[in-house]
Amino acid sequence: MKATAVAPSNIAFIKYWGKKDKNLRLPANTSISMNLSNAFTTTTVEFSADNKKDEIYFGEKRMDRKSSIRVISHLDRIRRIAKKNLFAKVVTQNSFPQSTGIASSASGFAALTLAAVGAMDLKCSEKDLSILARLGSGSACRSIPCGFVEWKVSKTSENSYSFSLYDEKHWDLKDIIAVVSTEEKKTSSTLGHENAKSSPLFSKRLEHLPARIVKLKEALKEKNIKKLGELIEKEAIELHMIMMTQDPPLFYWDGSTMEIVKLVRLWRNDGLLVYFTLDAGPNVHLICESKEENKVLEKLKKLSYIKNVIINSPSSGARLIDKHLF
Amino acid sequence: MKATAVAPSNIAFIKYWGKKDKNLRLPANTSISMNLSNAFTTTTVEFSADNKKDEIYFGEKRMDRKSSIRVISHLDRIRRIAKKNLFAKVVTQNSFPQSTGIASSASGFAALTLAAVGAMDLKCSEKDLSILARLGSGSACRSIPCGFVEWKVSKTSENSYSFSLYDEKHWDLKDIIAVVSTEEKKTSSTLGHENAKSSPLFSKRLEHLPARIVKLKEALKEKNIKKLGELIEKEAIELHMIMMTQDPPLFYWDGSTMEIVKLVRLWRNDGLLVYFTLDAGPNVHLICESKEENKVLEKLKKLSYIKNVIINSPSSGARLIDKHLF
Repeated sequence: MKATAVAPSNIAFIKYWGKKDKNLRLPANTSISMNLSNAFTTTTVEFSADNKKDEIYFGEKRMDRKSSIRVISHLDRIRRIAKKNLFAKVVTQNSFPQSTGIASSASGFAALTLAAVGAMDLKCSEKDLSILARLGSGSACRSIPCGFVEWKVSKTSENSYSFSLYDEKHWDLKDIIAVVSTEEKKTSSTLGHENAKSSPLFSKRLEHLPARIVKLKEALKEKNIKKLGELIEKEAIELHMIMMTQDPPLFYWDGSTMEIVKLVRLWRNDGLLVYFTLDAGPNVHLICESKEENKVLEKLKKLSYIKNVIINSPSSGARLIDKHLF
Repeated sequence: MKATAVAPSNIAFIKYWGKKDKNLRLPANTSISMNLSNAFTTTTVEFSADNKKDEIYFGEKRMDRKSSIRVISHLDRIRRIAKKNLFAKVVTQNSFPQSTGIASSASGFAALTLAAVGAMDLKCSEKDLSILARLGSGSACRSIPCGFVEWKVSKTSENSYSFSLYDEKHWDLKDIIAVVSTEEKKTSSTLGHENAKSSPLFSKRLEHLPARIVKLKEALKEKNIKKLGELIEKEAIELHMIMMTQDPPLFYWDGSTMEIVKLVRLWRNDGLLVYFTLDAGPNVHLICESKEENKVLEKLKKLSYIKNVIINSPSSGARLIDKHLF
């Protein structure tokens, strides 16, 4: 009873911030994202009667206690569905640094969900998997379907799941992640979400988001980079505006985040069609069409504070890559 | 008919952003500020029948055309009141770099107003001077009265003026300006103000400001640094949130702005009672009581990206320092 799954991280064009229900991880708003081909988690889950307890490894190392508890709660969900009380050995590995604005919990919980479900040999639809992943980490539900994904807001758990708007071949977009920090962030997104409502600007955001979502879906349909780019920049700034006006405020930006944001706008003045977006961290995601990739990389090479870049195309969703049933 | 005036710049604790009336420079909201003792403008105005045209100097150099036009329009206002059609020679000098988030137009138009009114020997109350200065540059009206100043929102020009809440001896606060950039900003505040309403968050700001203003006045009355500090940080962040969500967005922060903002919060965790505020530019104003001044300076000395610091106490308002009537 062992399975290995790979799941992509995803970058949100319309962000998920704030929850309707904390425990069920029901979001305050619909969000839209793209799966990332080179920022992914690989997770192997093995249930066995020989295991005396759950053992969770992050690469070669035991996972820290806090993260382990969250993983074990998730395994419990799947054990309850499978009605099998077996402990698991979990080995997980990211292709990118953790807790730095690349959604490691998204790819992590999507991979964990699929690997555990696969190991238990449960029959699950994509919708079921997405709901399960959401219960582990909200944005993980967007890493289950392929390509460009929508996660619908809903009042009930069974209706809040993600589905593919377009598969990964729809549009040859690039997300070039400029990694400026690999430090772990001091406040987790989970805690930040809970305080979103304390921003005096949060309710206003929820009011005007539906109109922005309509426009963003048009931009995706039309493959209109200018339209998409302008919307995602507004959305990214607004996310951090909410964070910085929360109580207590969350400052996820570094100085270099601000520098790159400003440079991107200057590059565009010179005709380079590249746009930024940001997740809950300091790294900057540079979105462009693939024909601009080299020009963007040339620009980034000159910035000494960039530690490395991760070049992503749209990706398929979570998939099982290995499954053994004994 | 010559007079020289000195006027302080001011740092707003409650910010002025957005206007009810563009031409009359009627603000969207009440604002509150402190005059700054070491960031000031000195302006000499000499009206004379010998002058063939208005000549405006910034130090030794002729002022650029765009700024000159605004100064000449202001001189026209004062000539209309005085009913004297005389051209002027104006020489103005700042104690600090221009257009870098230190309100040079505030001190500049306050000093110009008082010097021109003095040179014309007009009888003007403090209220009249404040209204006149406001017509030149909104926040200049706050640089007329002394110490800690309130500028009331109003629908009419004759009721939108500033007055002193407390004089400069009320509270030994310091505003230590960490200058991180002396570059001129690309978008002037005037243009930025006009687009404030395009931020989807602007109307929300106006809704909750009255409650914040009440609390801020309490903090000033009580000389409660913690209460004041928490309010001014929220207010400063909110100002830039509005700016960054305007259309087109305004990014006045530099990377170092963000770094200092985050450091201030860490220093406070270590017990140093210092708070930040920001104007329409990248420089950071560090607000503390005078007993903390040396500790703050020690911290700032270690930051290589700070170009210089300007240490301010609360200051008197605009005053004539020299007046010759021939």
